Amino acid sequence: MKLTILFGGASYEHEISIVSAITLKGKLLGFDLSFVFCDQDHTFYLIDSSKMKAVTFSKGEHKKMPKLTLVNGAFVQKNLFGATHYSGTVLNLIHGGDGEDGTIAALLDFYSLKYIGPRVNACVFSYDKRYTKYLCKAKDVKTLNYETLSRNEHQNITLAYPIIVKPSCLGSSIGVSIVKEESELDYALDTAFEFDSSVLVEPFINGVKEYNLAGFMAEGKMHFSIVEEPQKNEFLDFEKKYMDFARSEQVLKAEIDDALVIKLKANFEKIYRGLFEGALIRCDFFVINDEVYLNEINPIPGSMANYLFEDFGACIEDLSKSLPHAKRAKVSYEYIHSISSAKGK
Amino acid sequence: MKLTILFGGASYEHEISIVSAITLKGKLLGFDLSFVFCDQDHTFYLIDSSKMKAVTFSKGEHKKMPKLTLVNGAFVQKNLFGATHYSGTVLNLIHGGDGEDGTIAALLDFYSLKYIGPRVNACVFSYDKRYTKYLCKAKDVKTLNYETLSRNEHQNITLAYPIIVKPSCLGSSIGVSIVKEESELDYALDTAFEFDSSVLVEPFINGVKEYNLAGFMAEGKMHFSIVEEPQKNEFLDFEKKYMDFARSEQVLKAEIDDALVIKLKANFEKIYRGLFEGALIRCDFFVINDEVYLNEINPIPGSMANYLFEDFGACIEDLSKSLPHAKRAKVSYEYIHSISSAKGK
Repeated sequence: MKLTILFGGASYEHEISIVSAITLKGKLLGFDLSFVFCDQDHTFYLIDSSKMKAVTFSKGEHKKMPKLTLVNGAFVQKNLFGATHYSGTVLNLIHGGDGEDGTIAALLDFYSLKYIGPRVNACVFSYDKRYTKYLCKAKDVKTLNYETLSRNEHQNITLAYPIIVKPSCLGSSIGVSIVKEESELDYALDTAFEFDSSVLVEPFINGVKEYNLAGFMAEGKMHFSIVEEPQKNEFLDFEKKYMDFARSEQVLKAEIDDALVIKLKANFEKIYRGLFEGALIRCDFFVINDEVYLNEINPIPGSMANYLFEDFGACIEDLSKSLPHAKRAKVSYEYIHSISSAKGK
Repeated sequence: MKLTILFGGASYEHEISIVSAITLKGKLLGFDLSFVFCDQDHTFYLIDSSKMKAVTFSKGEHKKMPKLTLVNGAFVQKNLFGATHYSGTVLNLIHGGDGEDGTIAALLDFYSLKYIGPRVNACVFSYDKRYTKYLCKAKDVKTLNYETLSRNEHQNITLAYPIIVKPSCLGSSIGVSIVKEESELDYALDTAFEFDSSVLVEPFINGVKEYNLAGFMAEGKMHFSIVEEPQKNEFLDFEKKYMDFARSEQVLKAEIDDALVIKLKANFEKIYRGLFEGALIRCDFFVINDEVYLNEINPIPGSMANYLFEDFGACIEDLSKSLPHAKRAKVSYEYIHSISSAKGK
């Protein structure tokens, strides 16, 4: 099948999006892939498959490739003799800003392109960790206690140390610190506030059990990956996570009993249903005293969490057949005459 | 000052957006206004000010006017001899779908146009009434009890009659019914589900006190309109609301004591701060036993609630000087080489 991989973006995760795209090229060998790069200035480029290498972008060589613009139903490449339209299904692989904050979703909706990826509402509830807390509360999914701080507003933290300090809106551990005692707090807050005007603080639980689960809905049914117990090293720092985005080998199942797998899937489904349709997402959970807590939602996980699925290509095909599309209201102008005549306009 | 009024949209409220735009033309006489119409097929047209009449659109005459496209920083009109850029501040006046669901906000953010209107997050929390409930809970603002129903899922309602049935995502009372007893429920649900796959049910309180308050933030400070007690006629139906969008005469203050005004403003500010910056919104409240309940948030109120402000033009000028703009991450490609060399790519 045809699939356009959209990657890059004006995002702190721009570079790992490139790594993700290169990884997917290797994982979707049976697909007829096109690659559309969104540069940090929001120009789109059509990237020749043979040039899908990290250096193409870091050296700026993409700027010599054909520019694309969006029109109704397609990316279009204009040239002297006309235009070529790329109207196939898009896979939104822009991690972080643009891709996960709802911007790209809205853009593709507006121009009526079919796409794999979270819709605008799903982005808002997963991109900002505060809103994930609101969602979990409404859906009856447990999360850790938290407090929020704003940049220009000094508040006290009432949580006991150690704590973890996170910018509200960034992924890949950017700006995240573990704070063991109060003396380290200011530095951690300064770091986090460099990236976001809002910061979330949670208890840090050393050695907490972590489990990752990916999944998607196709034909009204949930499809789940295996459950992985991620390796950790206190917590995943940015460089370590970076390497994760290049993962392509299937990992081993976590050694947990079926009852826990069922609980994890049930929590995943509560989050997913009615909000994330069209997307393949990864939920990262904590397990504390046999209770499942949602840590975070990755609505566009690194390299689409391909390494958690046995037949990743089949998943993408199934998902692409079940994509929601934005319903457009039809306008009849039925009322306007009665109103305008009443107003004498 | 220069201001581009953006109106229309693929929305059930397309027609009232036209009425709003015509009304604002009359209210912003000191401004250098341009009018950009978003047709239901998402084509943009530049509308000559003298053609800002309802019949222009209902007769399709706008299709003969210049088409515009979006480029970085501007709407652009291409012609044989080059292109004209319209890069002024935009006022997003698209009510309902497109304008209030985050689509237009994301589009203007992506193309770096400055605009008056709710940002993507603000749209998501005000457009879907379920998410407004989540927000109010998090911000400690009271709302009525509610239940949600999904289209293909028959659930029982436990609320006592009479109830009010609303599509989750529509404004202007579209698809809304008051249900006095169970026998009327199915018809009301069928009506609501015509417009949305999710429906919200709340108690209907006959004769409840209603108060509307509009406001915005400029230079870090809240600016409020007068409080209005809207006239009602059981509830506002679509045609009656339609007329509201053409309102241009300042209304009288509600006769309520200062303590209640202060309470209404405090609740408004809890909702607004940290989410609605850049927008002039109207919050509609109920007052029951001296307690304030949020009914709904109008992030792009009909004709911008101009009739609630003494000097509406000055408000728009103040607001336009305090617009947030989407921060774009800068990409350095610092990491990509280390990663790609580690991976041998």
